[in-house]
Amino acid sequence: MEPEAGEITSDELQLATRNHGTPLEALRYPITPVGLHYLLIHYDIPVVDEPSWRLEIGGSVDRPLSLSLDELRALPAVSVAATFECAGNGRALLRPRPISQPWLSEAVGTGEWRGVALRTVLEKAAVRDGSREVVFTGLDRGLEGGEEQQYRRSLPIDEAMGQDALLAYELNGRPLPPQHGFPVRLVVPGWYGMANVKWLRAIELTAEPYRGYQNERSYRFRSSDDDPGVPVTRIAPRALMVPPGIPDFMTRRRFVPIGGARLEGRAWSGWGPIDLVEVSADGGATWDAASLDPGAADHRWQWQGWTYDWQPPGAGEYELCCRARDGAGNQQPLEASWNAGGYANNSVQRVAVTVRSGEG
Amino acid sequence: MEPEAGEITSDELQLATRNHGTPLEALRYPITPVGLHYLLIHYDIPVVDEPSWRLEIGGSVDRPLSLSLDELRALPAVSVAATFECAGNGRALLRPRPISQPWLSEAVGTGEWRGVALRTVLEKAAVRDGSREVVFTGLDRGLEGGEEQQYRRSLPIDEAMGQDALLAYELNGRPLPPQHGFPVRLVVPGWYGMANVKWLRAIELTAEPYRGYQNERSYRFRSSDDDPGVPVTRIAPRALMVPPGIPDFMTRRRFVPIGGARLEGRAWSGWGPIDLVEVSADGGATWDAASLDPGAADHRWQWQGWTYDWQPPGAGEYELCCRARDGAGNQQPLEASWNAGGYANNSVQRVAVTVRSGEG
Repeated sequence: MEPEAGEITSDELQLATRNHGTPLEALRYPITPVGLHYLLIHYDIPVVDEPSWRLEIGGSVDRPLSLSLDELRALPAVSVAATFECAGNGRALLRPRPISQPWLSEAVGTGEWRGVALRTVLEKAAVRDGSREVVFTGLDRGLEGGEEQQYRRSLPIDEAMGQDALLAYELNGRPLPPQHGFPVRLVVPGWYGMANVKWLRAIELTAEPYRGYQNERSYRFRSSDDDPGVPVTRIAPRALMVPPGIPDFMTRRRFVPIGGARLEGRAWSGWGPIDLVEVSADGGATWDAASLDPGAADHRWQWQGWTYDWQPPGAGEYELCCRARDGAGNQQPLEASWNAGGYANNSVQRVAVTVRSGEG
Repeated sequence: MEPEAGEITSDELQLATRNHGTPLEALRYPITPVGLHYLLIHYDIPVVDEPSWRLEIGGSVDRPLSLSLDELRALPAVSVAATFECAGNGRALLRPRPISQPWLSEAVGTGEWRGVALRTVLEKAAVRDGSREVVFTGLDRGLEGGEEQQYRRSLPIDEAMGQDALLAYELNGRPLPPQHGFPVRLVVPGWYGMANVKWLRAIELTAEPYRGYQNERSYRFRSSDDDPGVPVTRIAPRALMVPPGIPDFMTRRRFVPIGGARLEGRAWSGWGPIDLVEVSADGGATWDAASLDPGAADHRWQWQGWTYDWQPPGAGEYELCCRARDGAGNQQPLEASWNAGGYANNSVQRVAVTVRSGEG
């Protein structure tokens, strides 16, 4: 589909009324409450009958498995607080705008996921030497790019056997809600959301490279539809702030009292811990370091809190920005670099603020 | 703001990425799971410190009250399953399109609300004779129509003393989530969503007509911005179906096997019980009655389930519609009647379906 220079189309609106971002004031919570966490659902949310549900593990394994939810729950449990972000976050800010779910910057959230380490299940299935990829299939079904499919993604075997990938059956201490993949989903901390396959029904080990739609056609950085491109994998660094003061209903412009505001937000990266968050009050011309919350985040994959006391020089119009840098040296750009799928636009957040006399 | 004949504006998109509808496949649940229920938040979701929170009841009462959450919970509790719908549902289908939250038809959901009957608290406060209105103030604050405000709405005293209005502190058996009004919200079954004031902090009885923004300027049926109009109150009837078959990701067009499909959905009205749901497979030219679920809904204010076995005459393109009629004789129109705020557009749902050979 051709990218669009004009305003939002009816197809994009249909997606935007179904899928939703995290309202940015919810960045105040270290763990995002259920219902505030962003959602991107490719097809429909399936209704799953738990008693008859099984997770099938097969392909190049010596001991194929068929596990009920109770059997999965009987295996050793692990938890991870992980920040998820949709690969398409920032898409609707690109010019021209690739046509798909039209995210601005709010497609992020952090969950406390609990389940069984993926490695535990793969070891139980006795993966054969020479297995290269692990293919995960969800129960959700639809058409995409003209191809009928169940949602299906592969991970390289090394990522799947790494220590953090999880078959999760709980979110924030409760069974998964339907929209987050009940009864079981894959969680791959540090990767963009497309890796976290929901409503899992099957895991297949394969010795051949996997060529399915969601790996080979979708979720690639391409300069054009003809470019084979490279896969979208880990989350690029991003900082977001809670928009300060109070909003205008329609424009979402913020109104802040002349005394200023304590800015607060979160920052994350799939490539390394956050080592710097900076704030600009002049649209990115000059920057000042924010304070990272004392102590690291509880977990490597959880976003890092930050604060910044902003004292505006006077009443007037400001453009607040924030940006993050991770330990691998990746820093958010001021301007987006364009790609045909509209992925990973982590250009800095810009918040329009009016500073005025009074209580704000 | 002028209505818009073109595509969705950036202001509307900002609202659509924050607020979200119920994905229509979730009409399968008689009680909408938290996180799937629609949300419309005027300003920001406030963070409420429960220990210091109080509900103040004052104005024309003989015994002003200041109640903690524990004190409210100690009063006799009641529950009601109530279907909520945003007054702006259907707005983005109007031509020209009034500019605000751009709902299609998904701004609906049903919750199991539990709390204290509003009447119980008003009786405890000893409302004075001559009180005409009850004014409810939330903790959320912002600008709207150029006016700074906390969200505030009034109800006529008779509605407030009626048997179903509730001060709710639980949704679906759990404390209210932040986005649904923690710690306490008003629930006015049968009325559009704007009546259900969230994050309640004060209730004031008044002997004078209330003239605040959300009653006098917003939420009125007006032919133009100059028309004083009439208030938006109860929910007009509507039926929605779960879109059958499987979707295309981008267009949401549905694909159904040639054998047909069992259509299912829900219908509701704030004016009376649903007494008829009809289905059309030809865009509304001809209609056939659906089956209402055996027995009424558990509660007067809960949507009513319905089913219809659809046997298409052959492969091809169809436009499925459904419409409801309530016991007061109100029936959904084929075409919307326009108003400047874009309220209560309950024209029939239209679902584009391709019937094809194979399993669908």
